[in-house]
Amino acid sequence: MNRFLKLALKEAYSGVRSGSGGPFGAVIVCKRKVIAKAHNEVFSTNDPSAHAEIVAIRKASKKLARFDLSDCEIYSSCEPCPMCFSAIRWAKIKKLFYGCISSDAEKIGFGDNGIYNEIRGKAKKKIIAKQLGRKECLAIFAEWENKKAKKMY
Amino acid sequence: MNRFLKLALKEAYSGVRSGSGGPFGAVIVCKRKVIAKAHNEVFSTNDPSAHAEIVAIRKASKKLARFDLSDCEIYSSCEPCPMCFSAIRWAKIKKLFYGCISSDAEKIGFGDNGIYNEIRGKAKKKIIAKQLGRKECLAIFAEWENKKAKKMY
Repeated sequence: MNRFLKLALKEAYSGVRSGSGGPFGAVIVCKRKVIAKAHNEVFSTNDPSAHAEIVAIRKASKKLARFDLSDCEIYSSCEPCPMCFSAIRWAKIKKLFYGCISSDAEKIGFGDNGIYNEIRGKAKKKIIAKQLGRKECLAIFAEWENKKAKKMY
Repeated sequence: MNRFLKLALKEAYSGVRSGSGGPFGAVIVCKRKVIAKAHNEVFSTNDPSAHAEIVAIRKASKKLARFDLSDCEIYSSCEPCPMCFSAIRWAKIKKLFYGCISSDAEKIGFGDNGIYNEIRGKAKKKIIAKQLGRKECLAIFAEWENKKAKKMY
């Protein structure tokens, strides 16, 4: 078994056994060196966004003191949900290795596939969304555009 | 203008002017009371997942000491990216109000639409993904399934 994926799996076991959260672990590697290890912490932190991949990204970016992790790879014990997939994209990580697949997570009660289906337009959105005040909100985009020497992510 | 959306917009201004991150703000409301206000903090924290909605969800769940925010609403100065949309779903928030739309964010250089298109299968994924070690990783799902009195999120 791939040694980094094995570490991600070890994190998943540790998270379940400590009651931290769901059965998921992730590891971020930079130049063959482990930068961050994490497991799901939804229960221990009460943060619904504390999935293993997100916690690992937070730890890695803190450690490397940068939000651009384009020289890193991520290993996850399960295929990332759309929140984590998108977080990996925002972090600019280019390689992802994963063990279980989304339908495996679905079989044990996790809603990843349902959210994927909503985004893909294959299922009705559970969130009632309403757009309003666009004109007023666009003003901050204009201010941003006119800002000098701004960073991007 | 809706007063909660106005607060979200105020957050967006505050985040841009302090250099914390991109021009985005969000507010979480529970029973007509503001629970959390946040702006994008990608630059100030170096956390690529620190979008306004995610920071607001973290603050709200911490304040309410629970990961289930199903009695809350979220107001965002811009349509949430797929990471934030999914985080809102994981938080079980049922109502979302937003100002600018994704294509407005695209026009000022933010990649929300690109990630949406990758998830929707309308664009080639920028992440190289490889599945491996599924059999070994399924073992933790089995342990989870056999766990007694487990919580779900």
